[in-house]
Amino acid sequence: MTERAPLSSLSADELAAFLADKQAAYAELKDRGLSLDLTRGKPASDQLDLSEALLSLPTGHTDRSGADVRNYGGLEGLLELREMFAELLGVETAQVICGGNSSLTMMHQALTDLLLWGGPGSERAWKDEPVVKFVCPVPGYDRHFSMLADFGIEMVTVPMNEDGPDVEAVRALVADDPSVKGLWIVPTYANPTGATCSVEVATALMSMPTAAPDFRVFWDNAYALHHLTDTEVKSADALSIAAANGHPDRPIMFASTSKITFAGAGVAVMAMSETNKAWFLKHLGMASIGPDKVNHLRHVQFFGDADGVRAHMRKHRELIAPKFAAVQAALTAELAGLEVAEWTEPTGGYFVNLDVMDGTATRVVQLAKEAGIALTPAGASFPHGQDPRDRNIRLAPTFPPLEQVETAMAGVATCVALAAAEALTR
Amino acid sequence: MTERAPLSSLSADELAAFLADKQAAYAELKDRGLSLDLTRGKPASDQLDLSEALLSLPTGHTDRSGADVRNYGGLEGLLELREMFAELLGVETAQVICGGNSSLTMMHQALTDLLLWGGPGSERAWKDEPVVKFVCPVPGYDRHFSMLADFGIEMVTVPMNEDGPDVEAVRALVADDPSVKGLWIVPTYANPTGATCSVEVATALMSMPTAAPDFRVFWDNAYALHHLTDTEVKSADALSIAAANGHPDRPIMFASTSKITFAGAGVAVMAMSETNKAWFLKHLGMASIGPDKVNHLRHVQFFGDADGVRAHMRKHRELIAPKFAAVQAALTAELAGLEVAEWTEPTGGYFVNLDVMDGTATRVVQLAKEAGIALTPAGASFPHGQDPRDRNIRLAPTFPPLEQVETAMAGVATCVALAAAEALTR
Repeated sequence: MTERAPLSSLSADELAAFLADKQAAYAELKDRGLSLDLTRGKPASDQLDLSEALLSLPTGHTDRSGADVRNYGGLEGLLELREMFAELLGVETAQVICGGNSSLTMMHQALTDLLLWGGPGSERAWKDEPVVKFVCPVPGYDRHFSMLADFGIEMVTVPMNEDGPDVEAVRALVADDPSVKGLWIVPTYANPTGATCSVEVATALMSMPTAAPDFRVFWDNAYALHHLTDTEVKSADALSIAAANGHPDRPIMFASTSKITFAGAGVAVMAMSETNKAWFLKHLGMASIGPDKVNHLRHVQFFGDADGVRAHMRKHRELIAPKFAAVQAALTAELAGLEVAEWTEPTGGYFVNLDVMDGTATRVVQLAKEAGIALTPAGASFPHGQDPRDRNIRLAPTFPPLEQVETAMAGVATCVALAAAEALTR
Repeated sequence: MTERAPLSSLSADELAAFLADKQAAYAELKDRGLSLDLTRGKPASDQLDLSEALLSLPTGHTDRSGADVRNYGGLEGLLELREMFAELLGVETAQVICGGNSSLTMMHQALTDLLLWGGPGSERAWKDEPVVKFVCPVPGYDRHFSMLADFGIEMVTVPMNEDGPDVEAVRALVADDPSVKGLWIVPTYANPTGATCSVEVATALMSMPTAAPDFRVFWDNAYALHHLTDTEVKSADALSIAAANGHPDRPIMFASTSKITFAGAGVAVMAMSETNKAWFLKHLGMASIGPDKVNHLRHVQFFGDADGVRAHMRKHRELIAPKFAAVQAALTAELAGLEVAEWTEPTGGYFVNLDVMDGTATRVVQLAKEAGIALTPAGASFPHGQDPRDRNIRLAPTFPPLEQVETAMAGVATCVALAAAEALTR
């Protein structure tokens, strides 16, 4: 690693020289006329190719019980798929529902049901509460925040630490305010920080007293199986922990194969207490005569069993780990020692969290855009897109080919350094 | 046809003899130990087999624009599928959204959105109205009614005539009461009567003044293409009629391939004004990153074009028309002339509507059940399952094999005659 002095320690002359150097580098970057995109956590083509065999499945059209998967029915989803997910998520089959192609849709349904009817433990429908608030660890997943905003649910933030949400901050929010009805978290390889919720933090979240009798933790385990290293972290067993602590209905777990098979044509899954499940199925039964069981059978035949899924995920890792390494290499090469940025080195998931110098994230994204490199808007990982320190940028390196990630990230690093130099010389 | 006297014209002795005769026939029926099911409008295995080629499609994974259908995106659905449905439904492609496997789910979403946010023209979210009412033509589709009940929406009934809902009755309900927010209808080959809404009735519904500025007609065109005769009726063009009459946002049209390809694994579709569509997509975008476009492409490749769908529907007709004929034959053989029952002779759709003697429908269903013939519960086609005259029974002959339909319907006819004789001798 290059030995560099922190940018803030340079003399005015040194800083001016640094700025000029970065301005020249940036001018060169712009001249290249790039058109690159690091905005969204999408799998790349070669990842989707890993599941191409799905396109000619299933063979036959009956499930293990002999039921015709082509017809109506089976609201909970195919039993053999539910068993597979139960093993993968460390829950009981009886707690699992398999649905359509999107866990986001299932989260939306669960929130809708809580708003319109309330859930187990509710004193009334949430729509009839004067205010409903959710605790949002930040930085977090932009689609969670935009959904809450659309529902008119207020968001109160807590820091997302390396072992999960800041427990004391959560405790302070939920203890006395019955309008705080929920918390939304990506517990494993979080979007965007890559942090994984420890068993201790999970236990605190599942056991802490809450003023709301129907407090819910939306446990969006989107990346439960999405390891980037040999250390395949196991998610905390939220349902068991909650039940053991007297709050069996608190967590609702979500996952999907969107980043396992096909992003748009996978299967989504929920797991929850049997009380929650009966409640959810009651309303789901008004909206559906059953999920796409052909796609369920397709997935069952493709994987064979839970180990088939795990083996498949190692093939994804082979394809995307080099892209994450390229992000680290580019940021380190340009920025190490300057003390103008910090970034995560995730061991799983789909994102790298880049914190640049306070007040410069919007400028970095703008510079990158003008150089043909699309980044997620600054602040996207905060409620209403408002990062109070304007420093957070989410990097999503999976979709572009490796060489594009390398090129784009070298460019991003230049923008980070330039924006910092601009700020320090202002 | 046997010449028979109306049952009510028989002398007491003749009636007693008739009763004894039917009791004997019923005892014989029970002794056969049947186990038959006419409860739900499900396609039979041989109908599902017509689409078996879907299971090894699609070939390739890109749509006409070159987009990878396996990945996220494309909230409106595949353009080429939207074009196909636009032609089939007689609407503009720009008005169409293709979704997941269930139009019921899309109806639920639309109602949810209206409740939580209101729609174009709404003064407030429907949840904030003191009361919300829907006009329900009866007999109608039980799942519409149960969904409305779950949402706490009050149902006010109007008669379903042979050309659609009773227009004057609807007019009287909607003219002055702003809490009447909608009407739900199966316009073509209605469930269960088989009636088709005429252009005149459609025009009246789409043009009539309503006290509610955001009055909606849920136009559930589930059987638009499901002809049983050579007369392939064309659905009234609700969207154009509404637009021409100054109420472009009034109708929301729904359809699906559930009874075209696979009941559980088809594709659903909505069509509506572009204002309604923008509103719907705004909320849909919070709940989804796009539908299962692989299944969209699968359907596009399977059908080729709209004519492919029409040709496919004629194969369905070949399989199910004999079952509908068997229903007619059995009812006629046993009941013609007795004047204890009336039934429809549908030219499309999935149901036969059987009206038995007032006050005997529950008894008929019970008799059939005890003889091993499952019928839809009496009253199912009315809100809250309450048929004020206890006379309506919905027959669904598509699912069982033809010989079972024959056996079951002969049994049902016996039960109808027996229940009538019981009532007349009571």
